[in-house]
Amino acid sequence: MNTAELELPVSVPSTALFTDQYELTMLQAALRSGTAHRRSVFEVFTRRLPEGRRYGVVAGTGRVLDAVENFRFGPDVLDFLRSRAVVDEATLSWLADYRFGGDIHGYPEGEVYFPGSPVLRVEGTFAECVLLETVVLSILNHDSAVAAAASRMAVAAGDRPLVEMGARRTHELAAVAAARAAYVGGFSRTSDLAAGFRYGIPTSGTSAHAFTLLHDSERDAFTAQVESLGRGTTLLVDTYDVAEAVRTAVEVAGPDLGAVRIDSGDLLLVAHRVRQQLDELGARDTRIVVTSDLDEYAIASLAAAPVDSYGVGTQLVTGSGHPTCSMVYKLVARADDADDGGTGGAGGTGGGGALRPVAKRSLGGKSTVGGAKWAARPRDADGVARAEVLGTGALPEELADVRLQVPLVRAGRTIGREPLDAARDRHRAALAGLPLSATQLSRGEPVLPTEQR
Amino acid sequence: MNTAELELPVSVPSTALFTDQYELTMLQAALRSGTAHRRSVFEVFTRRLPEGRRYGVVAGTGRVLDAVENFRFGPDVLDFLRSRAVVDEATLSWLADYRFGGDIHGYPEGEVYFPGSPVLRVEGTFAECVLLETVVLSILNHDSAVAAAASRMAVAAGDRPLVEMGARRTHELAAVAAARAAYVGGFSRTSDLAAGFRYGIPTSGTSAHAFTLLHDSERDAFTAQVESLGRGTTLLVDTYDVAEAVRTAVEVAGPDLGAVRIDSGDLLLVAHRVRQQLDELGARDTRIVVTSDLDEYAIASLAAAPVDSYGVGTQLVTGSGHPTCSMVYKLVARADDADDGGTGGAGGTGGGGALRPVAKRSLGGKSTVGGAKWAARPRDADGVARAEVLGTGALPEELADVRLQVPLVRAGRTIGREPLDAARDRHRAALAGLPLSATQLSRGEPVLPTEQR
Repeated sequence: MNTAELELPVSVPSTALFTDQYELTMLQAALRSGTAHRRSVFEVFTRRLPEGRRYGVVAGTGRVLDAVENFRFGPDVLDFLRSRAVVDEATLSWLADYRFGGDIHGYPEGEVYFPGSPVLRVEGTFAECVLLETVVLSILNHDSAVAAAASRMAVAAGDRPLVEMGARRTHELAAVAAARAAYVGGFSRTSDLAAGFRYGIPTSGTSAHAFTLLHDSERDAFTAQVESLGRGTTLLVDTYDVAEAVRTAVEVAGPDLGAVRIDSGDLLLVAHRVRQQLDELGARDTRIVVTSDLDEYAIASLAAAPVDSYGVGTQLVTGSGHPTCSMVYKLVARADDADDGGTGGAGGTGGGGALRPVAKRSLGGKSTVGGAKWAARPRDADGVARAEVLGTGALPEELADVRLQVPLVRAGRTIGREPLDAARDRHRAALAGLPLSATQLSRGEPVLPTEQR
Repeated sequence: MNTAELELPVSVPSTALFTDQYELTMLQAALRSGTAHRRSVFEVFTRRLPEGRRYGVVAGTGRVLDAVENFRFGPDVLDFLRSRAVVDEATLSWLADYRFGGDIHGYPEGEVYFPGSPVLRVEGTFAECVLLETVVLSILNHDSAVAAAASRMAVAAGDRPLVEMGARRTHELAAVAAARAAYVGGFSRTSDLAAGFRYGIPTSGTSAHAFTLLHDSERDAFTAQVESLGRGTTLLVDTYDVAEAVRTAVEVAGPDLGAVRIDSGDLLLVAHRVRQQLDELGARDTRIVVTSDLDEYAIASLAAAPVDSYGVGTQLVTGSGHPTCSMVYKLVARADDADDGGTGGAGGTGGGGALRPVAKRSLGGKSTVGGAKWAARPRDADGVARAEVLGTGALPEELADVRLQVPLVRAGRTIGREPLDAARDRHRAALAGLPLSATQLSRGEPVLPTEQR
């Protein structure tokens, strides 16, 4: 293998095959029937929050922008589609020239959402918009699920920092996105080097039980670690006997030891004992990190314990019981006439025939509300949000200042890119603007009612 | 963007950053203390199955082999590690030359496993083995979770084919691995084009509600679809009124219509009605596909319904309630002396000092059994497996024929690669060799006891 090939591929050069086959067969049939170029509006929303959750968190928007920009059908992909006879030659020719030329608006990343919130709106020809469904949903459903769990954990942790360490519990690239979403939701660092590399998230980590077991004694292991990584390192103290390990740790590193980590046992009890022991040994500034099977409830239960930071794995990357959101990507409006855009055309709602609302309306719980929606979150006199207000048509003037959607892509050009810290800061601000009950961990209803105007 | 860059990156050129930072800091400290080259054995196993599950399914082994082969630290990665001061220069030099030179044995892909089963064993120097922990666990924990859900769904579906269509509910690259794992577990096809491209899995898909809504009438939509995709296509009949849609579908396509798809409502009731209607319309060979929020229980409940195939999304890619396994990667044995391998050395258990078992033994439920383990699954007179037997030391001769582990990597060279269909066939055979109660969907205990010899 050539050295030039050794790059980490989390920046994906083509996202075009992260697509369900039916997007392409629909495209083929629509190209043939002359409807492919009808101006269309698709919206992403959820019908409900996960049971008991009080708010959702939009995450992945930045990744969606990358995915849309990189959504191209190169020769390899076209050859594959041809070899499998997925679509006909006319469709392959169309795909070869594909690039999204429409508009995307959406809730900015880190914003909270509620049932029905139009978190993303994609406008353009049917053809150019329909293809994006799968990859847009993959990203938003995954990243928002992780961010929602992260947000609740961050609330439970208060001022104590949280480290994401769930890479080993999820797909290796999902892990990178999970670290990113966790950061948006309020985590401070990640163990995942790929997430540091790709997104600039601070990384951390020191040692595992294997390191202690590798050495002939715990003392040898601690000595080796401190000699190499310095006194500020974190020593793992639960391989054998915790009290003995803490004593050895302070003997080896001195009272300047950075931290000890506890990864098993009754964390509440053990943390108290270790704190007392560290204090008695003069290591008053040595921090205590806990990392065993934590979720937001376990974190909350340690609020009164002498714990300085939390490492969270499994429950974070699996959305703390809700590993996916139920976001859908639905056609909500379209023009009647077929000649209003051209191939990969200008998009937008400005030209062509009038848009008419459309919606599935069979029985069975999956019907939708037609029409492109605006969304706004008015506040009461104290500045606290009081409802998620949605409507079609023109945005009422009194809601102009509290409109939620922002432009992300205009005529195919990305205009909504921002640093990840902006999303993280926005999430904190959005949460602070909700009624106080938003941050209760107990099961509840969405903290804002959704009002259809 | 250059056309040459437009390749789908699911074949990952470097997996080296899919790694928790502590693997590298442990490496640094061990290089300095002289223990990095101690011959070591790491094992992957779970302490328990997800609650109520009767067996686990090993999946991802083929992806692990790819990940190990591609685990290299290129200049970009080294520059990143240097810029963040993750490790020192001596460690960076060591990493620049890294390639795994040890041995890997494991349960072959598709095999079933039980608590304690040593599904993978990685042997070599501590340094070369410890680095692989995170990526190995990411792959096995994710893929095995999906395969286990797929296997239960395949059992519930009996002879009816299952289509994986969960890409939109999980990370876009996790989706590709999920389609692969689902195939191992017994699914027949996937909607995910990337999975078809990367792994050769058959793909399928025709249309969504958006296609119907795009047209001025359901009849227009069906006509467009049949004209483009042929009479063998699958028409989605639940956008408006199902009975009317079925009538229109047969009018448009004739009695040779391939299939109709139902995506909402009471599937049991609707399937019966649609079957009766299709038969009355002479479309006796038109199949019925159902796709709404299915899991293994919903599939089982449709066993007596006139359904021809199932499409499964959310519950498949999220492991039907268990989105990750609890596999861990633990040091179970190591040599005492430091001069038995050299950098990235020969690995194996042949040379150097004697291996001694090691194990975490603090209280708190995470203690491990030391020593490199063999595993065998003896059968009773009827050929039915009766136990998962594990032991250290030499494999008893009478168990030689029922040994579970196979060689996968020898001295750094991959020798265990196989076609994906081999894993799929193996899974079916493994399941057939278990006691009958293995395939009960109800909650139960592991169907084989784990016996430590």
